[in-house]
Amino acid sequence: MTPTDVIMKKRLGHELTREEIEYFVRGSVNGDFKDYQLSALLMAICIRGMSDRETVDLTMAMAHSGEVLDLGEIDGVKVDKHSTGGVGDTTTLIVAPLVAACGVKVAKMSGRGLGFTGGTLDKLESIPGMRIDLTRDEFISAVQKNGIAVIGQTGQLAPADKTLYALRDVTATVDCLPLICSSILSKKIAAGCDAVVLDVKTGSGAIMPTLEQSIELARTMVRIGSMTGRRFSALVTDMDQPLGMYIGNALEVTEAVKALRGEAEGALLDVSLQLGAQILLSARAAKTKDEALSMLRGKLESGEGLEKLKQMIASQGGDPRIADDLSLLPQAQETIDLTAPSGGYISGMTTSEIGYAALALGAGRSSKEADIDPAVGLVMKKRIGDAVEKGEAWCTLHVNPGSRVEEAKRRLEGALSISKEKPVLRPLVYTTIEADDV
Amino acid sequence: MTPTDVIMKKRLGHELTREEIEYFVRGSVNGDFKDYQLSALLMAICIRGMSDRETVDLTMAMAHSGEVLDLGEIDGVKVDKHSTGGVGDTTTLIVAPLVAACGVKVAKMSGRGLGFTGGTLDKLESIPGMRIDLTRDEFISAVQKNGIAVIGQTGQLAPADKTLYALRDVTATVDCLPLICSSILSKKIAAGCDAVVLDVKTGSGAIMPTLEQSIELARTMVRIGSMTGRRFSALVTDMDQPLGMYIGNALEVTEAVKALRGEAEGALLDVSLQLGAQILLSARAAKTKDEALSMLRGKLESGEGLEKLKQMIASQGGDPRIADDLSLLPQAQETIDLTAPSGGYISGMTTSEIGYAALALGAGRSSKEADIDPAVGLVMKKRIGDAVEKGEAWCTLHVNPGSRVEEAKRRLEGALSISKEKPVLRPLVYTTIEADDV
Repeated sequence: MTPTDVIMKKRLGHELTREEIEYFVRGSVNGDFKDYQLSALLMAICIRGMSDRETVDLTMAMAHSGEVLDLGEIDGVKVDKHSTGGVGDTTTLIVAPLVAACGVKVAKMSGRGLGFTGGTLDKLESIPGMRIDLTRDEFISAVQKNGIAVIGQTGQLAPADKTLYALRDVTATVDCLPLICSSILSKKIAAGCDAVVLDVKTGSGAIMPTLEQSIELARTMVRIGSMTGRRFSALVTDMDQPLGMYIGNALEVTEAVKALRGEAEGALLDVSLQLGAQILLSARAAKTKDEALSMLRGKLESGEGLEKLKQMIASQGGDPRIADDLSLLPQAQETIDLTAPSGGYISGMTTSEIGYAALALGAGRSSKEADIDPAVGLVMKKRIGDAVEKGEAWCTLHVNPGSRVEEAKRRLEGALSISKEKPVLRPLVYTTIEADDV
Repeated sequence: MTPTDVIMKKRLGHELTREEIEYFVRGSVNGDFKDYQLSALLMAICIRGMSDRETVDLTMAMAHSGEVLDLGEIDGVKVDKHSTGGVGDTTTLIVAPLVAACGVKVAKMSGRGLGFTGGTLDKLESIPGMRIDLTRDEFISAVQKNGIAVIGQTGQLAPADKTLYALRDVTATVDCLPLICSSILSKKIAAGCDAVVLDVKTGSGAIMPTLEQSIELARTMVRIGSMTGRRFSALVTDMDQPLGMYIGNALEVTEAVKALRGEAEGALLDVSLQLGAQILLSARAAKTKDEALSMLRGKLESGEGLEKLKQMIASQGGDPRIADDLSLLPQAQETIDLTAPSGGYISGMTTSEIGYAALALGAGRSSKEADIDPAVGLVMKKRIGDAVEKGEAWCTLHVNPGSRVEEAKRRLEGALSISKEKPVLRPLVYTTIEADDV
């Protein structure tokens, strides 16, 4: 078997065997497949597709291309969640503490932001002293002790995904169902959890913009994930506008803390509670959705959720006092209000453009190596459907000297639509997909 | 415009504009397209295809990716031929001198052998002293003076083809009509000739094994070539067995000299005369095929063809005495006869395997950097349809100490089929394709 044999087979549209898939995934790590051979094969996969069996084999081969974490030492069901990425999507910092407060172990590996989407690791790092590079033993003992830890994915986990993703990014092969699916699932499987709840976004700030494509992605991931023998389920949630009102790293920590304090009702909290309920159901910690929701609301009202976040921050070296005094988080030097050019109703926000505006201020990174500024970002004053008067502020920019303010303004102004009629509102959660449904 | 824009457009099956094609071809030379981006695009082209307009634009962009030779200083029509490659395919060394003896200028750039196919340059280099690296001025003055020169393609000619071909070879994207077509035609156009006759092989030793595919390739090349404004025509000829009886570099020069001496009738001479006639017609040096054939036969019988070969050899620094004394060519140390395992009729020869057998002896190269031995090779004693007795020699191996004799024998034995019934013979020339036909 040679690389060209495998490439030719997929070029002709045939199904690859498990051996061929394992050969190619191993080759992506050990160099037997050169990058130009991998990219030719990835393109053939994009155009020809993969069967479920091939996608399962690809997922497992990628999961086993490096270390597979064994969380067996931790008692009980270990849960994880994964979002396909969005803007103002701070659910992890709300869901994880609430679920942990309900007694379900959260052993989560998160990623960094890239392009217009944020990443939980960057948000955590805006907390003074916070470490996201725990060793395996530190990670396990933190989960044992507090029931919660959120860390970065180590380089030893699914290294094939790292190689393939870097190539897909520059060869127009990102938006391909079996490749998206195997990339996400392989990392979750290598991270060793028993149950994973996927948050598949849909809308103008999502990897898959249409609802139909988003549901197909969610169904495919739950189906493939279940075929690997783990518990997978998914929610399809709205990303046609930023989920939270705060966008930027310290700003999103701020909003999460406010939510856990009970000071921030709204879409972000609602979606967080729905995700949390699905996690409790997956972990068999609740029997019905209503029961799960009331457990979570109880932990919110009692302050145990906030307490859990503080425990997590402290056990990872961070300063837990930020939860009591948000001014301890990095603050931008200046704020600038953006005002509405006309009156009416907010009828649309191009979410990706809002994400890019935050990036222009310094909150995100356009390449993997770029630095970010934890303090800068946006605070939205309006959501779709809200009335707005001409000259009223609809967004506040938090800027520092390095921020590209003009670009951010231009993008934000282009992202906003105002109409005379009140628009029909989209649901926050479109559907829940369980293994039995697919 | 970015590389991923162009790749995505072809991935989705859309037609690329001329600007996009020129951007990608330029990018393959100046590094704006990385090799992994080129290979992803090549795969998308293989699966999605290209329109004639795209293929013409690709051909012209590749031709103009480097130097385009201006042969305007040479009077009259300058002709070239190109074979898609085969085994025992020594036509150039017979056709070119005969055509030149008829007064038509042959300004030919040839290639080296790779894999099981031989290359004219390697054959020429088996002649002591022969240079194939003439400068542009030496090349032009040789064609002016003798009406003939055969040299190697310089690195400045169609450099994009060099990059793309090297990638195609290792990414399973060789056998793709628009890519084959643009690769061959771009080099011919950059080499500056007015008229080109293509020899498209078909059968077990051809780039396209089936007759249908070979005719499609020939028609496509003539159609695309004509759309670039030059005179292109093609013969589809048989490569279901070695064309000549001699395989190997000095051995093939030997057979060409014998043919020009009138000592070797048979398939090689017949196909050479048919190609030569098509070249004379293309150059408007003859009005009918019969007239062209009788001109060529005249130059063969008068010895002027052989004389022209000697002139060419001498003007390129080689020893022309080899044409009178073939023992001046490199000779192998030993010969080994291979005998038939049973009696009957030769009913099949897997041509590619015979080519690989010659390669195992040292006559070919498996990678571009490998050395070849000019002396070694095979002399076939039989052709398909010939009667053979059990124990009768059907092939003679010419071997040197470095030859892998056992591998060659194994391949040759596997390549041979003997039947009790006399097989139906295939034609040598299947069809001629003119610009008016496509």
